[in-house]
Amino acid sequence: MALSTSLSTCTAHRVVPKTAKCYQERSYTSFTPKQSVLSKPIYSNGIAPSRLSLTMNSPNCQGSGKVLRSGGYQCHALDIETPSSFLAGEKFQLDDVIEAQQFDLDILNAIFKVAREMEQIEKRSGQSNILKGYLMSTLFYEPSTRTRLSFESAMKRLGGEVLTTENAREFSSAAKGETLEDTIRTVEGYSDIIVMRHFESGAARRAAGTASIPIINAGDGPGQHPTQALLDVYTIEREIGKLDSIKVGLVGDLANGRTVRSLAYLLAKYRDVKIYLVSPDVVKMKDDIKDYLTAKGVEWEESSDLIEVASKCDVVYQTRIQKERFGERIDLYEEARGKYIVDRTVLDVMQKHAVVMHPLPRLDEITVDVDADPRAAYFRQAKNGLYIRMALLKLLLVGW
Amino acid sequence: MALSTSLSTCTAHRVVPKTAKCYQERSYTSFTPKQSVLSKPIYSNGIAPSRLSLTMNSPNCQGSGKVLRSGGYQCHALDIETPSSFLAGEKFQLDDVIEAQQFDLDILNAIFKVAREMEQIEKRSGQSNILKGYLMSTLFYEPSTRTRLSFESAMKRLGGEVLTTENAREFSSAAKGETLEDTIRTVEGYSDIIVMRHFESGAARRAAGTASIPIINAGDGPGQHPTQALLDVYTIEREIGKLDSIKVGLVGDLANGRTVRSLAYLLAKYRDVKIYLVSPDVVKMKDDIKDYLTAKGVEWEESSDLIEVASKCDVVYQTRIQKERFGERIDLYEEARGKYIVDRTVLDVMQKHAVVMHPLPRLDEITVDVDADPRAAYFRQAKNGLYIRMALLKLLLVGW
Amino acid sequence: MALSTSLSTCTAHRVVPKTAKCYQERSYTSFTPKQSVLSKPIYSNGIAPSRLSLTMNSPNCQGSGKVLRSGGYQCHALDIETPSSFLAGEKFQLDDVIEAQQFDLDILNAIFKVAREMEQIEKRSGQSNILKGYLMSTLFYEPSTRTRLSFESAMKRLGGEVLTTENAREFSSAAKGETLEDTIRTVEGYSDIIVMRHFESGAARRAAGTASIPIINAGDGPGQHPTQALLDVYTIEREIGKLDSIKVGLVGDLANGRTVRSLAYLLAKYRDVKIYLVSPDVVKMKDDIKDYLTAKGVEWEESSDLIEVASKCDVVYQTRIQKERFGERIDLYEEARGKYIVDRTVLDVMQKHAVVMHPLPRLDEITVDVDADPRAAYFRQAKNGLYIRMALLKLLLVGW
Repeated sequence: MALSTSLSTCTAHRVVPKTAKCYQERSYTSFTPKQSVLSKPIYSNGIAPSRLSLTMNSPNCQGSGKVLRSGGYQCHALDIETPSSFLAGEKFQLDDVIEAQQFDLDILNAIFKVAREMEQIEKRSGQSNILKGYLMSTLFYEPSTRTRLSFESAMKRLGGEVLTTENAREFSSAAKGETLEDTIRTVEGYSDIIVMRHFESGAARRAAGTASIPIINAGDGPGQHPTQALLDVYTIEREIGKLDSIKVGLVGDLANGRTVRSLAYLLAKYRDVKIYLVSPDVVKMKDDIKDYLTAKGVEWEESSDLIEVASKCDVVYQTRIQKERFGERIDLYEEARGKYIVDRTVLDVMQKHAVVMHPLPRLDEITVDVDADPRAAYFRQAKNGLYIRMALLKLLLVGW
Repeated sequence: MALSTSLSTCTAHRVVPKTAKCYQERSYTSFTPKQSVLSKPIYSNGIAPSRLSLTMNSPNCQGSGKVLRSGGYQCHALDIETPSSFLAGEKFQLDDVIEAQQFDLDILNAIFKVAREMEQIEKRSGQSNILKGYLMSTLFYEPSTRTRLSFESAMKRLGGEVLTTENAREFSSAAKGETLEDTIRTVEGYSDIIVMRHFESGAARRAAGTASIPIINAGDGPGQHPTQALLDVYTIEREIGKLDSIKVGLVGDLANGRTVRSLAYLLAKYRDVKIYLVSPDVVKMKDDIKDYLTAKGVEWEESSDLIEVASKCDVVYQTRIQKERFGERIDLYEEARGKYIVDRTVLDVMQKHAVVMHPLPRLDEITVDVDADPRAAYFRQAKNGLYIRMALLKLLLVGW
Repeated sequence: MALSTSLSTCTAHRVVPKTAKCYQERSYTSFTPKQSVLSKPIYSNGIAPSRLSLTMNSPNCQGSGKVLRSGGYQCHALDIETPSSFLAGEKFQLDDVIEAQQFDLDILNAIFKVAREMEQIEKRSGQSNILKGYLMSTLFYEPSTRTRLSFESAMKRLGGEVLTTENAREFSSAAKGETLEDTIRTVEGYSDIIVMRHFESGAARRAAGTASIPIINAGDGPGQHPTQALLDVYTIEREIGKLDSIKVGLVGDLANGRTVRSLAYLLAKYRDVKIYLVSPDVVKMKDDIKDYLTAKGVEWEESSDLIEVASKCDVVYQTRIQKERFGERIDLYEEARGKYIVDRTVLDVMQKHAVVMHPLPRLDEITVDVDADPRAAYFRQAKNGLYIRMALLKLLLVGW
């Protein structure tokens, strides 16, 4: 039985059907596996391959598959290095969103295409019923109101519903010593998808390994924040009109910001990209990323001249110097903080089509008089997070 | 005017009608009171009779009735010992869910029947519109994320909406000295049902005595947690297929766990039940429950041999030893904690149809290698909490 | 293009349209501006004129208008003293709700009329779909569960959806030093209206100056709490049947309570109102309000005889003596607190049609034996807050 047939059977239910439910019902039926387009996977030092699972359960699956509690059989490609793209014709299916590296160009393009559709839905009518009947749990082990509201807005704009936990760390069960795995097994019984923020690197992957419903990593400690990386790349594409042959200046705290590190990874997938690195000495970009860029043939250059870089770039990506990284050396923090400010002077040398981006929150590394310039793209960038998250929720819950 | 007629009149409204509203509108109309099937009530030491109110208001009511602020008249059977079952033909109506003892066999069976229907709704289509237009307040005076999410999921799966208060204790009004009664009188104006968790025993009963909308007790301190008791019994029925003639081993902290105490009460309602009590000496089952079981003709036996008990039982109900009960005697806690562990050795002697249950969260009193065994029922048990809560919300808001 | 035409075009969309979206789409179209009915504005000492914006964007607007990021043009009447009423025939449009003084009699009457309709909707059917597809953010920088639940209930009773932030002060971004303006610019991208509670006076006005979506002030520190003032006046009108020619006794803490101060302001708009001020010496009404009442021709009188005042008044408005205002002088607090209690003795002298009101929470300044008397209006008053907030949400989001 082909996937499309199976899905259309499901959608014949009176009330909104769930992929998850349909999924399990066809657990033991035979099917034609989707054709997977394998390409050479790339992983940097210390980062394990992304957890990817085939989108259909089948007793035919070999290897790391496991018998689901629901009676189905789920194949995992946990231990082999494959990209997360499983294309069948023009279609693919996401199972979890764990890290930026799991996306290849095909998937990125597909997600961005859906994000554009989401933008149209939100702008034209405010709400859709695409996810009506679906329930999302936001399981936040540390507070991140901005990210949480963005996901919850995305779910509700698509007609879905939300269960919220802002203080999952004080989740009575977690406080009593329950494992993350047990918590996930309970919460998956209450909802159709879990958006998780955690203080430990790798927590999202652990959750995805346990859950039978999709997991989205909304940031796990110093680890990954893949939806931020996606919305950054999407914003460049929306603002500049292309991702190949662009010049991007990464400015500010390049040592600690996971945002710029993830962005560098993703930009390396595109052709003819040039990256400028502009940062105070104490928070310079680390060698792993530089080596990675070099290995991928991406041209990069360190500079201490923000004005010169700004005049060349399509994108000036400013970041906040994170005070908490400097401990008691407030003097070093103050010195680093004041070094590269994006202000009217910087704007004046920037090209007309270029933009200033920032992952927010910003302090004074971009002066407020920049806000009114059409090239100040950071609030549009924040808004693009909504579209990217709408797209991911749609793709994870109802597919292409 | 018969109830059914009245309800169908209400449902003729353009938008979703509310029982509560219909209720008040028929306050002064004459009606045929529902036939109440009275049976001898049973209450244990120190526990007051459950607060029950007739489901219809009438000036004909005698006794403890009170004039409602809305102008209606509500009859309370507060001071007479009656069970909460008011059957009219095959129908009954719940007003509040305060304690496990309020349910007789008829009501338990009725609730379980509806819970099965809820299971079908959730599995088949994910969502229903049964409670569309209804609003539930979760008024939690102490955090209990698991319980809260379960109730909120139940409400949303039925198409209802939720107002959440996780920190009702810091409710600005409560902090300023407002009484629980005043808080309830305010919150009842904003919603159709209140799910309340409180740190004081008896708080739910006080709330129910004040509110003109249904109250569900989601745990009040060391007192009651009736929905947990219901989901436990429901799980046994679902897993074993019967509630009469079963053997149940209660293991772990039997002194402090309100879960096992409530379960013992409810099991005593069924025929030919045998209960084994397996616990470290410091947390043995207290005499009140043992005396109660004896009085009700329930066979029970204390044992220190978990393997032997496990080999005989249909249900091994494991519980967590609660560290907080031991104060500074960490040595006693550690001793008690390691004494009775459910692991593969225990599983090996259990019968094929038997199950392991646990109210969760678990620490290491059940080893993780038990999880994969089909007899590990604890995550299914947690999921059953969803169905029981869906059933109760339906019964309290729209009736049978 | 007239407003009505523009709106009906919008509502022809398949899914629920948004005023905000429609609004932006007609940014550059020409239109006939609404006729504004200007009357002499009145502001007390130190209170800035209310921020009001014309409801339509137009390049024709002069003065403080600003170019919207979305490309539209928004006119602000920020620096001229005008009332917020823009009547076009029988219609008007609210943009923000920032302070009690922004409302003139026409707008008050219009809001109260809509509140009555909301009452009918809530009582008849519980829910409406008027705001289906709209998303409200409750951005609370300090907890106020009662107010928050009231707004969220109002939104959900009208079919809208809610994003909740109870701890916006710990909003990771705010904690990291983000300005309120930046937070608003982000959150406005996720929702259609923001209900904000803040600890700083003037915060709501700042938010409204930044946001392109409506802001409702749900209390900003010692500043304003306009929806409380509206529900108080609405309650008097509902209970007494009129607002002209009434006698109102303000009792308790008249120095610190923003409630009674706002109420005095609004009552001064009506004809032939007499106000009695009954308070312990340490918390007497301040001169600014007394001078204001005098200037507006409102008769007022201080009294220390609650019984005599109660016998004359239509409304006895009791308030809580706020302990936190007395610092270490607990003795003064205790003395003030016990001085004017509304109890059965006070009720006995009150007229049959008169009512007791209180903004809640109450401690013992109204004894509980008063609650059962039909003249105890304070819980109905709390409920009226729901209707007022439903009315405001409707007016701000879909207009008249």
